[in-house]
Amino acid sequence: MSFTLAHLGPQGTYAEMAASACAEWWYQRGLGSLLLKPYPSIFQTLEAVNDGQVSLAIVPVENSTEGSVTVTLDTLWQLDSLHIRQAWILPISHTLLSRAAAEDITVIYSHPQALAQCQRWIEARFPNASLMPMRSTTDAVQRLDNEQTAGAIASRRAAEIYQLPVLADQINDYPDNCTRFWVVSRPDTVYPQLRPCNHTALAFSLPTNGPGALLQPLKIFADRGINLSRIESRPTKRSLGEYLFFLDIEEDAADSNVQDALNALPKVTETLKIFGSYSIWSADA
Amino acid sequence: MSFTLAHLGPQGTYAEMAASACAEWWYQRGLGSLLLKPYPSIFQTLEAVNDGQVSLAIVPVENSTEGSVTVTLDTLWQLDSLHIRQAWILPISHTLLSRAAAEDITVIYSHPQALAQCQRWIEARFPNASLMPMRSTTDAVQRLDNEQTAGAIASRRAAEIYQLPVLADQINDYPDNCTRFWVVSRPDTVYPQLRPCNHTALAFSLPTNGPGALLQPLKIFADRGINLSRIESRPTKRSLGEYLFFLDIEEDAADSNVQDALNALPKVTETLKIFGSYSIWSADA
Repeated sequence: MSFTLAHLGPQGTYAEMAASACAEWWYQRGLGSLLLKPYPSIFQTLEAVNDGQVSLAIVPVENSTEGSVTVTLDTLWQLDSLHIRQAWILPISHTLLSRAAAEDITVIYSHPQALAQCQRWIEARFPNASLMPMRSTTDAVQRLDNEQTAGAIASRRAAEIYQLPVLADQINDYPDNCTRFWVVSRPDTVYPQLRPCNHTALAFSLPTNGPGALLQPLKIFADRGINLSRIESRPTKRSLGEYLFFLDIEEDAADSNVQDALNALPKVTETLKIFGSYSIWSADA
Repeated sequence: MSFTLAHLGPQGTYAEMAASACAEWWYQRGLGSLLLKPYPSIFQTLEAVNDGQVSLAIVPVENSTEGSVTVTLDTLWQLDSLHIRQAWILPISHTLLSRAAAEDITVIYSHPQALAQCQRWIEARFPNASLMPMRSTTDAVQRLDNEQTAGAIASRRAAEIYQLPVLADQINDYPDNCTRFWVVSRPDTVYPQLRPCNHTALAFSLPTNGPGALLQPLKIFADRGINLSRIESRPTKRSLGEYLFFLDIEEDAADSNVQDALNALPKVTETLKIFGSYSIWSADA
């Protein structure tokens, strides 16, 4: 089996590191080879799977410091045919790269999430530097070719690929900084899943905004002893104050207790989407 | 009475428009004059109130298309002495500004929220333009001084202030695009509030992650017929999978039924913060 795995590129992004961990996992288990294919945005990465240009995509969904990657949640809700097959947790350790000496740096480029994850460190060391958000950490690194007094925040791997000096490492404000990625495919794509999965992802909108409207679906899980590991609200985009809710429960949708809960949900929700069951793997292991 | 009101600047941002609406409201009611003071980031805007440099700040908390402004929620949780006194809803209508002809535009600058709110429009009209996120819509506008083929997404007011041609208006993907702002102060600042307020904002962390841990606090409100208008989770930043929850309820904290609910909350939460009661005003009115 040979599949193509889309990710946010270019080469050297954290998404590519997560994609490599996934490809290695496939290879070591004799499942086949995954060919990595970079895309310029998370939206385009997911659209490529939806359109059938690629079989699989790996996208960031949540960071321990900055929270949800909202474009991933919004696109999953919007595109109809995406299924979550696996999750990967990648420790994120940022480095400051530059060809300049630290005292000469006037501008720092990076992805907005990376800038946010190093905010206090930057304010303490470079209070006067301009912070310039870029589409990816690799796009930031590429700015160093033309700008003498620029720094970029990216991974140590990016420093190696692009042969850039590391001025400081582990500069993220919180040491346990890590990002969870989801591997997604169309539902008909065969994926080597190990059952039982320990997570199921779903999302719903609510029929009313009255007292306790959100309580009803949450009670369905609590009454059955099903643990919710995450709840995230997103705007419906129709009007201010109307939300979708993204939930992760710590069970396999194939479990009969969970089946029972999922069958009860349509009565208390407006639109309900079950994104599938998956297990979480660590990119360290 | 004369107070200073901090906001994200420079002159011409949407935050300044919300600040002006608030200042006008004070003036028309004979409450005194508000002196507007721009800051370069939302974090610094809130810090200025916390440190006593200014009396009040107005900050965006939620947009109908893009959702929460997470830096606002995280900073409110982190700084100990901020109280919410009033909310303003501002309709957000974006325009494309440039001195170039539309066909010559190669790069579009704006605040990341504004780029996201116009994403489909840009993809349809300018599929090959580079999108460059900036600290504010005004910072984006100022790039046009030096770049011949650049466009900026900002308000019509920014076009007037900086005397720039409007190439297209109402370019946001969703017509009902609007942003909710909070006016905050330290608790000892006198603020002309009209009782009863129709909203109370609070946040809490949970003592455990077990089944139904989040259900307990939500049930306290549902059992008392108190409507939840919003729930948002944010990472604790300690480790992946641990969250804070920000809630808005549609009642005044001074109401005895609400008092009863707020008194019951400490038993089922870890840390609890009540940010105060406020009413929502429209910047159109």
